Amino acid sequence: MTGSLSIIGIGPGREDLVTPQVRAAIDRATDVVGYIPYVERIAARPGLTLHPSDNRVELDRSRHALDMAMQGRHVVVVSSGDPGVFAMAAAVFEAVEAGPADWRRLPIEVLPGITAMLAASAACGAPLGHDFCAINLSDNLKPWAIIEKRLRLAAEADFAMAFYNPRSKSRPEGFARALDVLKDACGDARPMIFARNVTRPDQTIRVVPLPDTTPDMADMRTLVILGSSTTRLITRPDGAAPWIYTPRSVPA
Amino acid sequence: MTGSLSIIGIGPGREDLVTPQVRAAIDRATDVVGYIPYVERIAARPGLTLHPSDNRVELDRSRHALDMAMQGRHVVVVSSGDPGVFAMAAAVFEAVEAGPADWRRLPIEVLPGITAMLAASAACGAPLGHDFCAINLSDNLKPWAIIEKRLRLAAEADFAMAFYNPRSKSRPEGFARALDVLKDACGDARPMIFARNVTRPDQTIRVVPLPDTTPDMADMRTLVILGSSTTRLITRPDGAAPWIYTPRSVPA
Repeated sequence: MTGSLSIIGIGPGREDLVTPQVRAAIDRATDVVGYIPYVERIAARPGLTLHPSDNRVELDRSRHALDMAMQGRHVVVVSSGDPGVFAMAAAVFEAVEAGPADWRRLPIEVLPGITAMLAASAACGAPLGHDFCAINLSDNLKPWAIIEKRLRLAAEADFAMAFYNPRSKSRPEGFARALDVLKDACGDARPMIFARNVTRPDQTIRVVPLPDTTPDMADMRTLVILGSSTTRLITRPDGAAPWIYTPRSVPA
Repeated sequence: MTGSLSIIGIGPGREDLVTPQVRAAIDRATDVVGYIPYVERIAARPGLTLHPSDNRVELDRSRHALDMAMQGRHVVVVSSGDPGVFAMAAAVFEAVEAGPADWRRLPIEVLPGITAMLAASAACGAPLGHDFCAINLSDNLKPWAIIEKRLRLAAEADFAMAFYNPRSKSRPEGFARALDVLKDACGDARPMIFARNVTRPDQTIRVVPLPDTTPDMADMRTLVILGSSTTRLITRPDGAAPWIYTPRSVPA
């Protein structure tokens, strides 16, 4: 009996952003493994066992999923957004590499999803319309010095930047430090976008010039985008939110 | 009569990667505007007019779409992948900013899609599982010096990198120069992934150590990913393709 493992992304929140490919994988699954709020998005049905688990147990969760697949189950590991962007796919492959040789025989597939930065970008225009980078601001798994170095080099490269996990209760000071570095490294008033609960009914999009940003503007439900030096704001009449975009060209 | 403009992404190729949100926008549209091969992916039906156009006319195409929306049409501007990543969204907003003030009153929405780098990443594991950047290697719209600077800074930041538009018939030498810069700046044998026609029936994924890469390995249908210094290859038995992933953590 051959099991399987599908590492899927269910997008940032709206149900009509779940791809049909991912929907079909859920329909085939016997077991769904993942962080509690993501597993809660999967509808219960006969024949499907839900295995919600807490945050910060990604490797245990991965091993559990791999074990069940070895036993012939059809296991789905669920992430929000895209599973390959600061999500479960890397954790599963870390577990595979360190695990029993037999795990390498399993059929493992990764099914992409709409990652939060692209939904946030779409919600306000096209701020990632030119070269950009994506940085996880959590220092759970990397030293702060690496984060600061990357922020400074990204500013020097004039990338637009998308920031995941900007701020948590356990690390309230990290985002303040990141903002200080960015204000120093960029030295201008380019827009920063705070997209909270993006694509959900309670979505909020706030656009603030970088010098006016404060750490409390982000929490763990916020995806933050910082424009490049060329990013533009298009004002609109009648109090409508501005559109923000980064042009495709860089003058010589 | 109020028209509308939806800038949509139809993903990299597989039809089951088109989100239901995008499918609904296509179903509502009266007009579809876009580059010929992308418009060809939209099914003809009564009441829908298709407006395919050639490459490199993005601003003309945008103005045409905006004009039609002003006339009350429900216009869809189609991109492959995600419309906000090296695609039509930035072009439309460039046209809006330079165009008549009335265009700013239009309801314009951007609907995200699965961008090629995330589909390519999923096809081979999770090479973008940690901090990464996305760079358009085309020098149509920016000087080569900017590209080289960004490649060197991205290597110094130790980002994984995704490259769009690596090589075209009109610019055969650009990718060769990019490879020279990357080999020099990285100085190791990290894997480069050449994902051609990703998610299509004729998809090919080729993984080559950076020092062994040659310019002919990419064309305009190839999405190229370069790992970071920490990216890992998991070998598999019986000739199966390796899995490639970038771990979530960076040691202190």
